Amino acid sequence: MILDKINTPEDLKKISIDEMNTLADEMRQLIIKKVNTTGGHMGPNLGIVETTIALHYVFNSPEDKIVFDVSHQCYPHKILTGRKDGFTNPENYFKYTGYTAPEESAHDIFKVGHTSTSVSLATGLAKSRDLRGGKENVIALIGDGSLSGGEAFEGLDNAADLDSNIIIVVNDNDMSIAENHGGIYRNLKLLRETKGQAEVNFFKSIGFDYYYVDDGNNVQDLIETFQKVKDINHPVVVHVKTIKGKGLPQAEINKEAFHWISAGALDEKPQTAQSIETYNSITTEYLYNKAKEDKSFILINPATPGALGFTPEFRAKLGKQYMDVGIAEEHAVACSSALAKSGSKPVLAVMSSFVQRTYDQLSQDLALNKSPLTMLVFWGGISSADATHLCTFDIPLISNIPNIVYLAPTCKEEYLKMLSWSIEQTDYPVAIRVPADGLISTGIEDTTDYSQLNKFKIEENGSEVAIIALGSFFKLGQTVKEELAAKMNIDATLINPKFITGIDKELLENLKQNHKLVITLENGMLNGGFGEKITRFYGNSDMKVLNFGSKKEFTDRTPIDELYRRYHLTPELILDDIKNCL
Amino acid sequence: MILDKINTPEDLKKISIDEMNTLADEMRQLIIKKVNTTGGHMGPNLGIVETTIALHYVFNSPEDKIVFDVSHQCYPHKILTGRKDGFTNPENYFKYTGYTAPEESAHDIFKVGHTSTSVSLATGLAKSRDLRGGKENVIALIGDGSLSGGEAFEGLDNAADLDSNIIIVVNDNDMSIAENHGGIYRNLKLLRETKGQAEVNFFKSIGFDYYYVDDGNNVQDLIETFQKVKDINHPVVVHVKTIKGKGLPQAEINKEAFHWISAGALDEKPQTAQSIETYNSITTEYLYNKAKEDKSFILINPATPGALGFTPEFRAKLGKQYMDVGIAEEHAVACSSALAKSGSKPVLAVMSSFVQRTYDQLSQDLALNKSPLTMLVFWGGISSADATHLCTFDIPLISNIPNIVYLAPTCKEEYLKMLSWSIEQTDYPVAIRVPADGLISTGIEDTTDYSQLNKFKIEENGSEVAIIALGSFFKLGQTVKEELAAKMNIDATLINPKFITGIDKELLENLKQNHKLVITLENGMLNGGFGEKITRFYGNSDMKVLNFGSKKEFTDRTPIDELYRRYHLTPELILDDIKNCL
Repeated sequence: MILDKINTPEDLKKISIDEMNTLADEMRQLIIKKVNTTGGHMGPNLGIVETTIALHYVFNSPEDKIVFDVSHQCYPHKILTGRKDGFTNPENYFKYTGYTAPEESAHDIFKVGHTSTSVSLATGLAKSRDLRGGKENVIALIGDGSLSGGEAFEGLDNAADLDSNIIIVVNDNDMSIAENHGGIYRNLKLLRETKGQAEVNFFKSIGFDYYYVDDGNNVQDLIETFQKVKDINHPVVVHVKTIKGKGLPQAEINKEAFHWISAGALDEKPQTAQSIETYNSITTEYLYNKAKEDKSFILINPATPGALGFTPEFRAKLGKQYMDVGIAEEHAVACSSALAKSGSKPVLAVMSSFVQRTYDQLSQDLALNKSPLTMLVFWGGISSADATHLCTFDIPLISNIPNIVYLAPTCKEEYLKMLSWSIEQTDYPVAIRVPADGLISTGIEDTTDYSQLNKFKIEENGSEVAIIALGSFFKLGQTVKEELAAKMNIDATLINPKFITGIDKELLENLKQNHKLVITLENGMLNGGFGEKITRFYGNSDMKVLNFGSKKEFTDRTPIDELYRRYHLTPELILDDIKNCL
Repeated sequence: MILDKINTPEDLKKISIDEMNTLADEMRQLIIKKVNTTGGHMGPNLGIVETTIALHYVFNSPEDKIVFDVSHQCYPHKILTGRKDGFTNPENYFKYTGYTAPEESAHDIFKVGHTSTSVSLATGLAKSRDLRGGKENVIALIGDGSLSGGEAFEGLDNAADLDSNIIIVVNDNDMSIAENHGGIYRNLKLLRETKGQAEVNFFKSIGFDYYYVDDGNNVQDLIETFQKVKDINHPVVVHVKTIKGKGLPQAEINKEAFHWISAGALDEKPQTAQSIETYNSITTEYLYNKAKEDKSFILINPATPGALGFTPEFRAKLGKQYMDVGIAEEHAVACSSALAKSGSKPVLAVMSSFVQRTYDQLSQDLALNKSPLTMLVFWGGISSADATHLCTFDIPLISNIPNIVYLAPTCKEEYLKMLSWSIEQTDYPVAIRVPADGLISTGIEDTTDYSQLNKFKIEENGSEVAIIALGSFFKLGQTVKEELAAKMNIDATLINPKFITGIDKELLENLKQNHKLVITLENGMLNGGFGEKITRFYGNSDMKVLNFGSKKEFTDRTPIDELYRRYHLTPELILDDIKNCL
């Protein structure tokens, strides 16, 4: 194997182009095997192998700085920068993260997982270099899909103003996670079709010098171009056309499905339709029927349809009633707010981690205008996710914005009732935290009138201890109630609050009569979250309150059982805390 | 007066171009007199008079929808849409807000005050129209300065994809609040210089049709162009060159100073240098000296230098050590994070209301990477501001992000000590909430070692009641202590917490020995704020806790005294609450 000779980027400089081509094949096979074993980003990494080899051949990392956008395409980079053992040896498959990680290597500058950040980060590195009179190259590697994000444009606009070296490598595979959406993609298409020669050029329009590489999976072409821009004294874009999924036929054909795959995806037979009911499946079923019966309904999503169950078939069926705005969460919220304000019935579907992109739009464009948008927040909750993709912050972020009603369903019936109420009402922006885990169906029809805001529901009446168990932690609340009965002979009250954004003062006041302790359970961060409001309510009383949820911290691929222990979110540890308090 | 005949936009359609020119003069004089009396946005409104007349002449508002970006340029629009009494009669000068306000008029679609939102909002209106088969024109009016904001680009990129009517009027006066920064402004310059004929065209590159109006203060030219694009069936940009401050010589010459003026600015003699010490003045003095002595220091600001005391002279003196990134808060944070990570000593200065633009960058680009940035947050606190510019949300927003240290100084010495510590340390992202009100100097040197995180300071030892008074509310805490002694014979403990982002568990634990009640005072929203963490700490104990701060609501030009009463933030009301609790 050529790879046997490659332990650092320096080693690359000693081999021939032919050997690099062989190396690319070897790397590709390692990536396919590893990703198919562990799950992970397949298409992005297969497409960028040659670009990564050429970058490390021409530039001198870590003196020269390479900043990866999203960094889900950094596997080839990891292989070439001392971490090939994470790919050659299955025992080490989980040794390195799927994103750049400064703690792993000096070749990784930033911990990155969200999109559209690389140009801004690179601009800061370039400006810092200029302040101290350094000479190194600063390179941002950004995919075409990420260009629609506002942060990317803000970065490009400012980077173009630098009077010094910055090299933006645009990896154009004509795909976001799904297909691209946005005017800029017509220009990229034109540039690809004219091999970079078209007069109308987005990058030139904002002041960049510009190079085009038509075969971005050809090491030699890439090296020649990178050599031309190395040590350049002004901002330049190198527009590289690559093939997403290159070298894996299925991935080249079905680019969306192979953007990220589950473990074993290559081994499985073609999937038949999902027969298990999930929150994704009931959501799509409900929205499809809604779209059919009501032409003012529209579903908006910022470029993550696959993760939410919005298959290409589903999107096609919705037609004009489905709007993928591209990676553009800020726009998604503002645009949806205007749709809601002008009589349409929009549902905006976003992932908890990415809703972080749009605080001000939620506050100003949406909440201040009281537009009756329905926003579905997916994946919220404590998990073993990467530090870049935690979903524990959405409650503090959304619920402290005035005017928004944030709802936490505990079962299918509640969820659908909340959804149908929200879509039809015209008074509030409503967010619904779609439970991220298995379905908890009570089988009981939900007849709640959600226009009566902030009415908590007592599911089971008891005394001494009251358990307020929010959303996807309602099940945990049920278990705690059972354990309290079994082990401490306490007949606890069990409450399903349903509303995250307000408290039921009357109900809380009444609890004082025959309860000593209230505990709150929430599947997210305590700081700024749901439980603290309950505690504040009881601050001037004798009621004791314990809040259970996650700490304010970035965890990183920490096993969920460990997190539950750390946060005292197991029934046993909750009972211990209750014992200590009573 | 021609204006006497104009009560609705319909009336405009009955007068001649000559009369419109006279009308423009009349409106301009009203605006100058009103703004000089009340304070407000001068330059933006003077520049847009003719454009507004032409828009209302050609289009049929409110059927046709005009969305104003920032909407600080909506005064001429208000005059023409039934609200001229707010300009002709000084008694009504405060009758209407300085921004579009749907509660005032059907001609105002959204409540807007932050920048770069109009295209996204207009895109939603257009999409909604298309869903229901409507025919009206949808127009966004956006200034050149706002184009650098990420939300504007996300909106433009998506708007260009519409297969229907949307008209983006770019009001190009070659100014942001201060001068523009960003690559796009070179293209606007080229387009102005070539009267829109240059091949390289940012708007065309993302797919817009394009028209150029060289004299955007000429009603006739504007009308002719707007008539061409009226009822157009695809996305179009009308690029209009205007003169900011048009018609007021001082404002045309000194565009930055006349963007927004205080009441009476036109009557005053030229200002001499500020002799009163303010937080702005000690900040600029400190930063100037820092820049001189340390070439790795750099000050970053996203386009609001004037409001923070960064005068043109100050910026010039800092030279390359000052970086205005344009309206681009997301980029400002990410770029500053990279500067901090790579050995520079960046200070990022932002306003509380606008830091809302950048939650995810604070979390991912900055906090997750633990970049030792210093961020100065200006203007935080309860105020009588417009609903669009409230500064009560920054504590919940910033302080619940892991890894960030958010500090609240109570006086000059503390502030400067925090600032100097923060700039030199390399362990944490640090934010400092610069007090928005008058200077409170103890005159005592601050010798705190801020690297010992979350150490609250007991300023005065007492018993029974402990007052934890944060930042700019420390003075209120002092008054409450005095009143408690005078009126309730209580010798309260007074605590200056200094740290917003953590609690001093040892100190709080010790308070249990001889205190029954802890009160917290914070100049901002209670929900998700500082006090709730204190309350949570005491949840399992007998300590009672009262949190004082603002409610979760958008207030709108509400007098501050009224807010203080509403929130029980006067010493008297605080004492009442304490009485009821003890």
